[in-house]
Amino acid sequence: MSSRPNVVSAEMPAHPITLEGHSVLHQMFRFRWAEWNKLGEGERLAILKEAGQALCPMEEKGETALFSMLGHKGDLMLIHFRSSFDELNQAELAVKHLRLQGYLEQTNSYLSVIELGLYDSTVKLYKQLLEKGLQPHSAEWEKEVQETIERQKAAMAPRLFPKIPAHRYLCFYPMDRKRGEAINFYTQDIEHRQKQMEAHGMVGRRYAGKVQQIITGSIGFDDWEWGVDLFAADPLQFKKLIYEMRFDEVSAVYASFGTFFVGLRVPIDKIAELLGGTLPELVPPPPTP
Amino acid sequence: MSSRPNVVSAEMPAHPITLEGHSVLHQMFRFRWAEWNKLGEGERLAILKEAGQALCPMEEKGETALFSMLGHKGDLMLIHFRSSFDELNQAELAVKHLRLQGYLEQTNSYLSVIELGLYDSTVKLYKQLLEKGLQPHSAEWEKEVQETIERQKAAMAPRLFPKIPAHRYLCFYPMDRKRGEAINFYTQDIEHRQKQMEAHGMVGRRYAGKVQQIITGSIGFDDWEWGVDLFAADPLQFKKLIYEMRFDEVSAVYASFGTFFVGLRVPIDKIAELLGGTLPELVPPPPTP
Amino acid sequence: MSSRPNVVSAEMPAHPITLEGHSVLHQMFRFRWAEWNKLGEGERLAILKEAGQALCPMEEKGETALFSMLGHKGDLMLIHFRSSFDELNQAELAVKHLRLQGYLEQTNSYLSVIELGLYDSTVKLYKQLLEKGLQPHSAEWEKEVQETIERQKAAMAPRLFPKIPAHRYLCFYPMDRKRGEAINFYTQDIEHRQKQMEAHGMVGRRYAGKVQQIITGSIGFDDWEWGVDLFAADPLQFKKLIYEMRFDEVSAVYASFGTFFVGLRVPIDKIAELLGGTLPELVPPPPTP
Amino acid sequence: MSSRPNVVSAEMPAHPITLEGHSVLHQMFRFRWAEWNKLGEGERLAILKEAGQALCPMEEKGETALFSMLGHKGDLMLIHFRSSFDELNQAELAVKHLRLQGYLEQTNSYLSVIELGLYDSTVKLYKQLLEKGLQPHSAEWEKEVQETIERQKAAMAPRLFPKIPAHRYLCFYPMDRKRGEAINFYTQDIEHRQKQMEAHGMVGRRYAGKVQQIITGSIGFDDWEWGVDLFAADPLQFKKLIYEMRFDEVSAVYASFGTFFVGLRVPIDKIAELLGGTLPELVPPPPTP
Amino acid sequence: MSSRPNVVSAEMPAHPITLEGHSVLHQMFRFRWAEWNKLGEGERLAILKEAGQALCPMEEKGETALFSMLGHKGDLMLIHFRSSFDELNQAELAVKHLRLQGYLEQTNSYLSVIELGLYDSTVKLYKQLLEKGLQPHSAEWEKEVQETIERQKAAMAPRLFPKIPAHRYLCFYPMDRKRGEAINFYTQDIEHRQKQMEAHGMVGRRYAGKVQQIITGSIGFDDWEWGVDLFAADPLQFKKLIYEMRFDEVSAVYASFGTFFVGLRVPIDKIAELLGGTLPELVPPPPTP
Repeated sequence: MSSRPNVVSAEMPAHPITLEGHSVLHQMFRFRWAEWNKLGEGERLAILKEAGQALCPMEEKGETALFSMLGHKGDLMLIHFRSSFDELNQAELAVKHLRLQGYLEQTNSYLSVIELGLYDSTVKLYKQLLEKGLQPHSAEWEKEVQETIERQKAAMAPRLFPKIPAHRYLCFYPMDRKRGEAINFYTQDIEHRQKQMEAHGMVGRRYAGKVQQIITGSIGFDDWEWGVDLFAADPLQFKKLIYEMRFDEVSAVYASFGTFFVGLRVPIDKIAELLGGTLPELVPPPPTP
Repeated sequence: MSSRPNVVSAEMPAHPITLEGHSVLHQMFRFRWAEWNKLGEGERLAILKEAGQALCPMEEKGETALFSMLGHKGDLMLIHFRSSFDELNQAELAVKHLRLQGYLEQTNSYLSVIELGLYDSTVKLYKQLLEKGLQPHSAEWEKEVQETIERQKAAMAPRLFPKIPAHRYLCFYPMDRKRGEAINFYTQDIEHRQKQMEAHGMVGRRYAGKVQQIITGSIGFDDWEWGVDLFAADPLQFKKLIYEMRFDEVSAVYASFGTFFVGLRVPIDKIAELLGGTLPELVPPPPTP
Repeated sequence: MSSRPNVVSAEMPAHPITLEGHSVLHQMFRFRWAEWNKLGEGERLAILKEAGQALCPMEEKGETALFSMLGHKGDLMLIHFRSSFDELNQAELAVKHLRLQGYLEQTNSYLSVIELGLYDSTVKLYKQLLEKGLQPHSAEWEKEVQETIERQKAAMAPRLFPKIPAHRYLCFYPMDRKRGEAINFYTQDIEHRQKQMEAHGMVGRRYAGKVQQIITGSIGFDDWEWGVDLFAADPLQFKKLIYEMRFDEVSAVYASFGTFFVGLRVPIDKIAELLGGTLPELVPPPPTP
Repeated sequence: MSSRPNVVSAEMPAHPITLEGHSVLHQMFRFRWAEWNKLGEGERLAILKEAGQALCPMEEKGETALFSMLGHKGDLMLIHFRSSFDELNQAELAVKHLRLQGYLEQTNSYLSVIELGLYDSTVKLYKQLLEKGLQPHSAEWEKEVQETIERQKAAMAPRLFPKIPAHRYLCFYPMDRKRGEAINFYTQDIEHRQKQMEAHGMVGRRYAGKVQQIITGSIGFDDWEWGVDLFAADPLQFKKLIYEMRFDEVSAVYASFGTFFVGLRVPIDKIAELLGGTLPELVPPPPTP
Repeated sequence: MSSRPNVVSAEMPAHPITLEGHSVLHQMFRFRWAEWNKLGEGERLAILKEAGQALCPMEEKGETALFSMLGHKGDLMLIHFRSSFDELNQAELAVKHLRLQGYLEQTNSYLSVIELGLYDSTVKLYKQLLEKGLQPHSAEWEKEVQETIERQKAAMAPRLFPKIPAHRYLCFYPMDRKRGEAINFYTQDIEHRQKQMEAHGMVGRRYAGKVQQIITGSIGFDDWEWGVDLFAADPLQFKKLIYEMRFDEVSAVYASFGTFFVGLRVPIDKIAELLGGTLPELVPPPPTP
């Protein structure tokens, strides 16, 4: 089942080092339009004022963003970036306690943490440690691994703890690597996986400046292994990027995809406009780089 | 897994060039008949007058169409063709803001863009560029590809930005190309895929004049890779075309199909007749070619 | 993948000729018993009088039938046989416009057309045409095929346009032929498929007089390829027939089955008895052969 | 695909003889606790008195039993054993017509008939008939088969038409035999299947006195091929029996399982106690062996 | 299909000995925030006082715990550890009878028993018994097995009948071992399975002190074979542990996973704070080790 021709890699631990950053929650809501449409102007404004007071400060810090969703999977999406699961849960509770909650039905969600998978560094490091004669998972081995993690985590902090990107369009989807009967990513040699991820990254690089990608890991947190957020100023780039990637070995052969969610960023202080039936412009952009 | 016997094609990028046109949204609704049936004549007419004022101008431009659906998957379907996702979202918001919204429950939707897959031109172009000695994805390569896209896009504009066809019957379904353990469309050589698509197109051509087909791409936008709209004056042609195609290699072996939705086109200014329990005729046809 | 050893059959088009008859809609409903049980006798009778006036004439023509369903998949089922999708949609609209609609929740449906698959005649005809030296899909070829269709359609009219059989018990289920990775009905030689269908028919013939079967095709109309209706005076015959068939090659290897729905025929003019909590007898039978 | 090395068994019909007994319906209900809890004592008692008058006589005959379900799949389960589908449907209608119906939401059901699969007798009989030189399905063959069925049916009457066992714990689940691409129970030789079923039965026999099993067949009636009811005085025996069986060839390789439902038997005249929030004891047991 | 090279292990019964402890029920609830938010302070407190009186004594005994859930799969989770299914059902009934029930919608549940799978001891014991010449399942064999079970059960009592661990974070998920066409855990030799489980346990051991794991068995009780509860002071450890394990043979090749549920432990006497929109701290911890 596995293909481990090389002696050194045969001894390598199979799992790559990962770095974790922000805790992330996606919340998708259906909005009770019929009930809302029946409310008087004054009541609507009071409800939205309360919501704005709770949510606008979160948006200003770049830790919460609002999207108008396309299609029946929901009307509104909130994304929360936080430092802990406690803070995420507190953000959820804040929404649930709003009067606006009476008009929201949560249809979906996704719980994950920002993740950088260090396939390259892992293979390099494991090779060095094996060449030094260290035993995988020995105290010395773990110490060296831990040092690498700390060093990389410091270097990568801006990518681990970002503000929510400010682009107009969002594409979010969860995904797995396959563990089938004949096709199993997890029994592949780590060096083979590293080469596949590298080729995959090459395609992504051609979309630099067009699509901003944030990968979140959700093993142990939600029903797929990863959640992917793509942000762009032109939504066609989502299609072009993902279609091109679909022919990569790691996608063509090993990826399985969940539901795709597409939304348009809406400044939270324009929510009255949106819930009044008009899609607000995204000018000025929310204060995130 | 892949079968790339030929040297030139082995060097070819794997993904075909595609052209994108209108942004497309399908919306399926269940109608709250029991609540509706209880309304007085006057209130019904007021609600439908408001809806007609919003929707009839869209229909006149050929950018929105109404269908009476068969079966429990919904009562009504709206199709929207627009220039951008913003306009699609605005069309959704316009419906959500109607009083009629109080009688609609959205059961499904599909988000996609009109797509022309240029397998033939792609293989020809890639061959020429490789024979010229160009490196895939080099600046020169991308420039030539971009020029082809622009030229084709101009030539194909009527097919990329059509009005919604005016036929009585609609069949809509989403589909994927398989990425299984032994059967994987995405690891097939591009020339093999091109030949399959060509044979597939030959069957379609025999239905010219009977079935009008619009292919939309939804990778990155919705849960299947493509959405197919068939329009016809005789719904039996849907069955005949799709059954015959099911024996093609690209369908028999590589296609997987989602839910099928069938509807009858109804002029929006006849919606009162429909919601009064009588299927309106489609005379005169809506003003689209 | 395909197995086409014989030269003649290798040249044969792969799809069998089919004949199509009535348009068919199955509608499954949950009944709001709690709300209904609260109504006064007079109101119930008024609601059912209106329903009877709409539905009894349809039943008399043999084009609509009512069933009391077993289990939670629904309480009531209506089957409609009609000449077109317009008439089916009109039948749906007639039900939706009844006051009884306030007590119905549609849980499922199935859209199809009565289909006779002519595997035997197709293989014979294709052989003759190939022996005459005709090119598949040439004008002459299509002319001969069309003539056969017309001739057979006339001969088969009673089976294509039947009234709904009058037996007490109904079993309805949708099904597909498999298109798996190693097992694919659609890549099998047409002569191999014809022989399988023939053996399958032999089993069916042993149940003549016990089970009456109507096959409907739904490619392009609904989510499975076929819908099967079995009618019998003894429901055990459903189990015996389907279990015995399950060992046939075409079922054992190539069939995949959807949900099974079982119902008891109820004369529509006895609906008050049924909705009053008592299963009506089926005496006298509705006027269909 | 099939493995039929032996000449005699190669000629044998593939399907085993089965005997059918009672018609069986499982009904799972969610109970509207919040609405119920709001009722006054008097109203509750009146509602339950009516329910008791309808259901207790059924329970006394051993043909209906009530269970308090564990988990969210339902609060209450009713099992009905009857002589016909008409009687089952009448039992359903009786429940639907109760005032208690206003507090019940049916979440699931299962329709089947008690079945004894006679693999042993079938293989023996088929061998004898083949040795006599009879042609499968000839008139003489069918006569002999029919005689065996009648003789066995008389002998097995107590197992075909039992009262509902009186044990405290119930485990119900539906199951299929696999028809996969490489693993297909239905293409196995009947003698091979018979040997597997025999080994399977050996495990069951070790649980005699601990677990009472009733197998019901549902091909043509519901969405799985069989429904299994296990009754025991100690629910751990369910786990032990099913886990041990899972290593049998016929389970390990060929079984696929649906949802598991677990309940505790409650005497129907104690339903007020149950719906008052206290699980009643099962003393004295209902009058079934 | 099976790989049983070794004579002794070929004779071994295939199933490992398991020990069973507490009966366990997980209950997931959506909370009706909108309805709750509308209640007056006094009514809320009265409802919560009643709930606290019922639930706090259970929590004090370490047999019931409350979690605030992350995401849309539910708002609240209750875990119950009890001595029997009767007690679990009584715990459910106690909740259903609360006034708080009017604000709870149960979205999911899981029924299982704490299980220790004794692969090591089983293989050792089976070898000894076979070397003694005992026949599997003979009276003597069963007596020796039973003695081992009793001895181990006494030794393992603290792990079989624990209080609910007091950590802040919970991760719960159900899982199966695969029974696919080519990959089937249940046809593997017991010694091969034992070695896989041993390697799997080695990874777990590296997380000692970081993650506390309770395995529950649910064959015959619920829809997956096992339910896994992980408790930790840092939720990232869930991801690290499960990701690392995913590369083990027994996970990479043989595991299939259900839905993941993540929650934060909340002392039940702080439920008013939680339902008032603020996540309570977990100080002081509930009285469990």
